[in-house]
Amino acid sequence: MRLATYENGLPDGELIVVSGDGERSMSAGPKWPSLLTAIESWSDALPDLRSLADRLEAGDGEAVVSEKLRAPLPRSWQWLDGSAFVTHGELMQVAFGMDPIDRARPLMYQGMSDRFLGPVEPAAFPSEADGIDFEGEFGVIVDFVPMGTSVEQAAGYIRLVVQINDWSLRTIAPVEMKTGFGWVQAKPACSMAPFAVTPDYLGEHWQNGRVCLDLLVERGGARFGFVNGGEMAFSFAELVAHAARTRDLVAGTVIGSGTVSNAQYASTGSACISERRAIEIIAVGAPSTPFLQFGETIRMVGQCSDGAAPFGAIVQEVARA
Amino acid sequence: MRLATYENGLPDGELIVVSGDGERSMSAGPKWPSLLTAIESWSDALPDLRSLADRLEAGDGEAVVSEKLRAPLPRSWQWLDGSAFVTHGELMQVAFGMDPIDRARPLMYQGMSDRFLGPVEPAAFPSEADGIDFEGEFGVIVDFVPMGTSVEQAAGYIRLVVQINDWSLRTIAPVEMKTGFGWVQAKPACSMAPFAVTPDYLGEHWQNGRVCLDLLVERGGARFGFVNGGEMAFSFAELVAHAARTRDLVAGTVIGSGTVSNAQYASTGSACISERRAIEIIAVGAPSTPFLQFGETIRMVGQCSDGAAPFGAIVQEVARA
Repeated sequence: MRLATYENGLPDGELIVVSGDGERSMSAGPKWPSLLTAIESWSDALPDLRSLADRLEAGDGEAVVSEKLRAPLPRSWQWLDGSAFVTHGELMQVAFGMDPIDRARPLMYQGMSDRFLGPVEPAAFPSEADGIDFEGEFGVIVDFVPMGTSVEQAAGYIRLVVQINDWSLRTIAPVEMKTGFGWVQAKPACSMAPFAVTPDYLGEHWQNGRVCLDLLVERGGARFGFVNGGEMAFSFAELVAHAARTRDLVAGTVIGSGTVSNAQYASTGSACISERRAIEIIAVGAPSTPFLQFGETIRMVGQCSDGAAPFGAIVQEVARA
Repeated sequence: MRLATYENGLPDGELIVVSGDGERSMSAGPKWPSLLTAIESWSDALPDLRSLADRLEAGDGEAVVSEKLRAPLPRSWQWLDGSAFVTHGELMQVAFGMDPIDRARPLMYQGMSDRFLGPVEPAAFPSEADGIDFEGEFGVIVDFVPMGTSVEQAAGYIRLVVQINDWSLRTIAPVEMKTGFGWVQAKPACSMAPFAVTPDYLGEHWQNGRVCLDLLVERGGARFGFVNGGEMAFSFAELVAHAARTRDLVAGTVIGSGTVSNAQYASTGSACISERRAIEIIAVGAPSTPFLQFGETIRMVGQCSDGAAPFGAIVQEVARA
């Protein structure tokens, strides 16, 4: 099943159910006005939403108005982003001059969750000098997860899968990282691709708690990366259990994979500029790929082996705030 | 003006206005059902709430039912905690074996905001082995703050002042800190004292964007610290401006001071166990004060020079989750 959110003037938007082919939709109606409401009562909401999905497959519904699509979850109470791709972690360690990181534990930070930008919403930043960068990744939206949930149990709380661009400011990132406090200024609002999908919708592309499909990243229309989500060192279930070690996770918590990255980066490219710069530093001693300037456009789309795009595409222009 | 939140079965609770002496209250009514609602439309809400406050001073209202008091803001979209007391930072650096930290920038991390525990709610943790600790601090609740707001402008967005216990797990904290990603497992839900107050209510105890009063911290009835909030190296306005450097701050954002700490710690004591342990390490080479065990009680109350307690008291028992 695919879900999305229409702009309706309210902070959480209007929940819609979308047909499998992404062409038609129906409003989830007043009982489930927003995705956040549905996630908070998922066992009640799911049959209602599935019933609408069945009607859509039978031909009901209206054409999706792409201009009205926001982030499927325009805001949530919690956003926890992992960094589960080992290749990315190792390359970034070089780029940022950090000490080697303990690989036995997932890396995770808490970020801004009060706003997720929509798929075509311009991303506004105060200064090009901050090192504007994207990070293509996947994420899951979970139900309420009790503190102390095991990895085995955690998989059962994953309700939806999403595609995310975790906007990052690279001049600030290492300064904040060095304090040990994590990122505030270096991590403004993320963006989401328009469709949140249930894990079953991904079929064979959802394996071992990983999104096993290719994320195409284009900068100004040119391929920047074509990286597969299957190489996570920790599954999403492991990330959920890690997050729930000492806290209950509120329903609607979004948990990210971190930048998708592959060991064969020479052929796959990267899902963020900083990683490519790290590769350049390692190869020739200095980075040559510049960070983003105002007016540049980034496109990200997860693609199945048959070319289908379950999450739809993020296409954003970098703007001056 | 003093505000508080009653338990009413809803996630955000019921907003009440409390008399200056803390004895009587009136419901803010259906127009302002919760503090979050009021903060989101503060310019409209303020006259209504002030009018109820005036009626309370004229003798209206009913006795405050302390058993019904929750955190004044039971949840919010964003919690950003600073570490603005230099003495605490220097001592913790020793305790955690961290590199010296750049003093020119405020320290700040993003923490869990989906739940703030109430003033007498037990604080439940999975294991004593995690190094259960408290952190007594003050905080502010801000209106919507546009990205790029200056320090001078930031002061004008501070709507309310609160008293916070930032529960911390010290065995995990340095492990997470070392990654540079900040804390997730080491920082479960914080608690709030029952009353949120407007800055003017604090009178002379609100100076230069600082809460200039003493925070009494008791562990098991014995004084642990009696520390003054006036020694912040950065004012709350500076913390707000720092947070808003690259993002709009959503209305209801809570910004914390970090653990209150004084240069004369030999006489004032500390507002967290870890700081006292650091002092012991510096003095005699090893810590002797243990972290908390299940069943222990922590009390925190900010006190004016006349003994008044504008925020009320936090009195929490440490419980097994």
